Amino acid sequence: MPESTQDQLFSLLSDQTINRKQFTFHGDPLPSTLKTPSKLVVLSSGTPNDGFFPINSIQLGITKKPHTPTSESFAIEKHANEEDLLDIKDAFQYGPTEGHPQLLKFLKSFINEVNRPKYDSWDITLTNGTGDSLNKVFNLLVNPGDVVLVESFTYKPVLNNIVNYGGIPYPVSINYGIEGDHGIDVEKLTNLLENWETINPDKKKPKALYTIPTGQNPTGLTISQENRAKIYELAKAHNFIVIEDDPYGYIQLGEYTDGIHNVYDTEIPYKRFIEEILPSSYIQQDNSGHVIRLESFSKTFAPGSRIGFIVAHKRFIKEIIKYAQVSNRAPSGISQIIISNFINQIGGIKGWIDWNIQVSKAYTERKNVLLKTLYNSSSFKKGQFNIVEPKAGMFAIIDINFPNAKEDYRKDIEELRYKILESGVVVVYGKNFAVNDDIAKGSKFIRITLANSVDTDQIKEGGEKLVEGIEKYFESISA
Amino acid sequence: MPESTQDQLFSLLSDQTINRKQFTFHGDPLPSTLKTPSKLVVLSSGTPNDGFFPINSIQLGITKKPHTPTSESFAIEKHANEEDLLDIKDAFQYGPTEGHPQLLKFLKSFINEVNRPKYDSWDITLTNGTGDSLNKVFNLLVNPGDVVLVESFTYKPVLNNIVNYGGIPYPVSINYGIEGDHGIDVEKLTNLLENWETINPDKKKPKALYTIPTGQNPTGLTISQENRAKIYELAKAHNFIVIEDDPYGYIQLGEYTDGIHNVYDTEIPYKRFIEEILPSSYIQQDNSGHVIRLESFSKTFAPGSRIGFIVAHKRFIKEIIKYAQVSNRAPSGISQIIISNFINQIGGIKGWIDWNIQVSKAYTERKNVLLKTLYNSSSFKKGQFNIVEPKAGMFAIIDINFPNAKEDYRKDIEELRYKILESGVVVVYGKNFAVNDDIAKGSKFIRITLANSVDTDQIKEGGEKLVEGIEKYFESISA
Repeated sequence: MPESTQDQLFSLLSDQTINRKQFTFHGDPLPSTLKTPSKLVVLSSGTPNDGFFPINSIQLGITKKPHTPTSESFAIEKHANEEDLLDIKDAFQYGPTEGHPQLLKFLKSFINEVNRPKYDSWDITLTNGTGDSLNKVFNLLVNPGDVVLVESFTYKPVLNNIVNYGGIPYPVSINYGIEGDHGIDVEKLTNLLENWETINPDKKKPKALYTIPTGQNPTGLTISQENRAKIYELAKAHNFIVIEDDPYGYIQLGEYTDGIHNVYDTEIPYKRFIEEILPSSYIQQDNSGHVIRLESFSKTFAPGSRIGFIVAHKRFIKEIIKYAQVSNRAPSGISQIIISNFINQIGGIKGWIDWNIQVSKAYTERKNVLLKTLYNSSSFKKGQFNIVEPKAGMFAIIDINFPNAKEDYRKDIEELRYKILESGVVVVYGKNFAVNDDIAKGSKFIRITLANSVDTDQIKEGGEKLVEGIEKYFESISA
Repeated sequence: MPESTQDQLFSLLSDQTINRKQFTFHGDPLPSTLKTPSKLVVLSSGTPNDGFFPINSIQLGITKKPHTPTSESFAIEKHANEEDLLDIKDAFQYGPTEGHPQLLKFLKSFINEVNRPKYDSWDITLTNGTGDSLNKVFNLLVNPGDVVLVESFTYKPVLNNIVNYGGIPYPVSINYGIEGDHGIDVEKLTNLLENWETINPDKKKPKALYTIPTGQNPTGLTISQENRAKIYELAKAHNFIVIEDDPYGYIQLGEYTDGIHNVYDTEIPYKRFIEEILPSSYIQQDNSGHVIRLESFSKTFAPGSRIGFIVAHKRFIKEIIKYAQVSNRAPSGISQIIISNFINQIGGIKGWIDWNIQVSKAYTERKNVLLKTLYNSSSFKKGQFNIVEPKAGMFAIIDINFPNAKEDYRKDIEELRYKILESGVVVVYGKNFAVNDDIAKGSKFIRITLANSVDTDQIKEGGEKLVEGIEKYFESISA
């Protein structure tokens, strides 16, 4: 990476990052001339001996396919002394801020195989989940008054993370129609950036773009590779960071088929899943360090693990670790040992991808059941709503075809919501994810989640109640 | 609590706490007149169904006495549906920022029994360990330029936490002689506070005192109940917060006896341990909300759990939770289930205290072995050092009787360090914990840790090498 690119990149660091001064507490160095016994007794360290941990072993009952009973179990020991396995003596001890080496080693191999940046000086740190990653990334970048672009409908807690540092969230238009591009409107974004000073004379140029590129929340939509490439070029040209939040990327939903139980009916080799099915991450295009990628174990392992990770330029990772050292330190070693040794048990990268394929299959089945229910409904056939099919993740949206185009649909949405509730189903509405009130007004879509239901029957039941509610709403307004 | 006390207390909140604005994302309310089916299908929530978690059960092999093999094992299930047990379906799911109700319920009962404040409106939140608690407490209180008092020798990473918010750590004298009071010098502190404007015309009056009252790091010493009471009164009178960091309080070391294996040889009933042996916490004197107590599972369960908790006025806890929601969110649910169900398995409060008694016994044995080794040494008999006996925790200090009193012992300590290393033991020195260089210069004590050694033989070996090194040093300077 040329030095000028690096200088430009590092100019984006926040003042608090640049000015962070920390006392270091390394032990005093040994003079090289000093002759000490080869084995020193250590009475200096405040870390408790592992004999003080009351847990001696952990046996995990696991499954390799969602919603199935335990298919095998394996033990995690104290003093197992196997190189690739995290040991209770280490996982239950104080651990490195960036994470234990066994899990980091896996993640580096995994990113190297699946989502490798186009430059070498990238690194990884674990975090306490993506919520924590977001706090750390905005701490890294945002000064009061800095602008962070966000999709006009987005995961709203991120706004609090931005505002916490005095940052200004600024919405960018997204496309979510049945036809045409999905995700950030590149033309509008280009225009916004090129004419920033005219459009926003009182605001600094954006320092970052926060985006959920795949299976976006709330739209469920995935931006094309072509548009990712264009947005990445904008990031380089206008010197801002693409913060790629990708918790859903490994949940691939395939094409809709009403042969619901037929999905992924031939086994997908993990290489094909990586190379053909997974969308190319922003960071795979990155040769300049302008992408910070956030991943999570919440959707494909368990949210309660509170383990996420950040892939970025090593300087960024170093600064994030320094901040972690004055904030929440290392994430749980107990979570790490369970994730790390589970992945080892099921076969490393291949096993982990196989598990993600199984999760994808289960979600695909759920999506197909939902879509079939919706497509077959009389409400749909009457043209009361459109379905925007998701290709990834856990969300699908339907857009209501209200009889009259309006600037403000909030009253209509509220009446529709009552009918849907009376029919016995809870969904959420686009307006709840809108970045500001103007965007909320214009929103007329419903977000349906595939994640929480017990099984496909419940998805089907929910879908049926939903279309019943929509139909009742349309009856009520034509009455 | 009178309103005026509360106003005074809340005036200590930092600007960022007072000004924190957060978007809320509650679902829209239901109109009370709406008739909905009694059971609603939920297609709104983005939390994955627990069938997507690949872990179905966890079997833990545990011991009720440190350094002993597994004495029993028990299972943690998905869908166990027992009220007091945390379930895999919940622990592996997104959880409450403040912690899961089962663990919080235990901790509230525990604090109620062991360290109850003198007012009712206190509350508890879990954190990602005490490092995280410190960040959260300084976020709660510290504006740039605010002064935080710290013991002149202390756990130094706390200085980074203070400086991170622009706070100014300010040392207060502590006593650590063989005779007389231990811990913060109350007379000097009183004088400092009463004459603050004269002594420090350029600094604001302190907003907080950070203290490790029991088994202090690095001195191992415990401040008396009487002095705690006086310091608490100072906190009220001068309106500052006592941040009581107490990771060591439950490790009680008893009186020194050279009948090493005789310690705690009658079983201590847990009630006696709570009522007579545990020192009274600052928060037990608190009737005004001026104490924030930090506890940790690091020393008496396992540091890798990254679970600590904060006990404080409920308004403070509420603000800390709001900050957690824009920073690292909830701590690991996997850590929580293992701690919570372990404690339940061993019998709740009584079982937990029994475990702490066993940990105390093991540390007491270690301390007695160390002290016996030191007292019996010819170096000690020659008067080359004093031993300051700890009553709690994992540290002991010895103070070197250098032949000449000096203002700056750093060169002498460095030469001593070489002799001690040549003898084959690593210890740390008071100067490494000094809050500033002047304090470091005057320091001539060594901190010995009881925690890390494999067993008492290693402690003994380390102690022998230590006194050998000290003796060699004295030979070298008299040569």
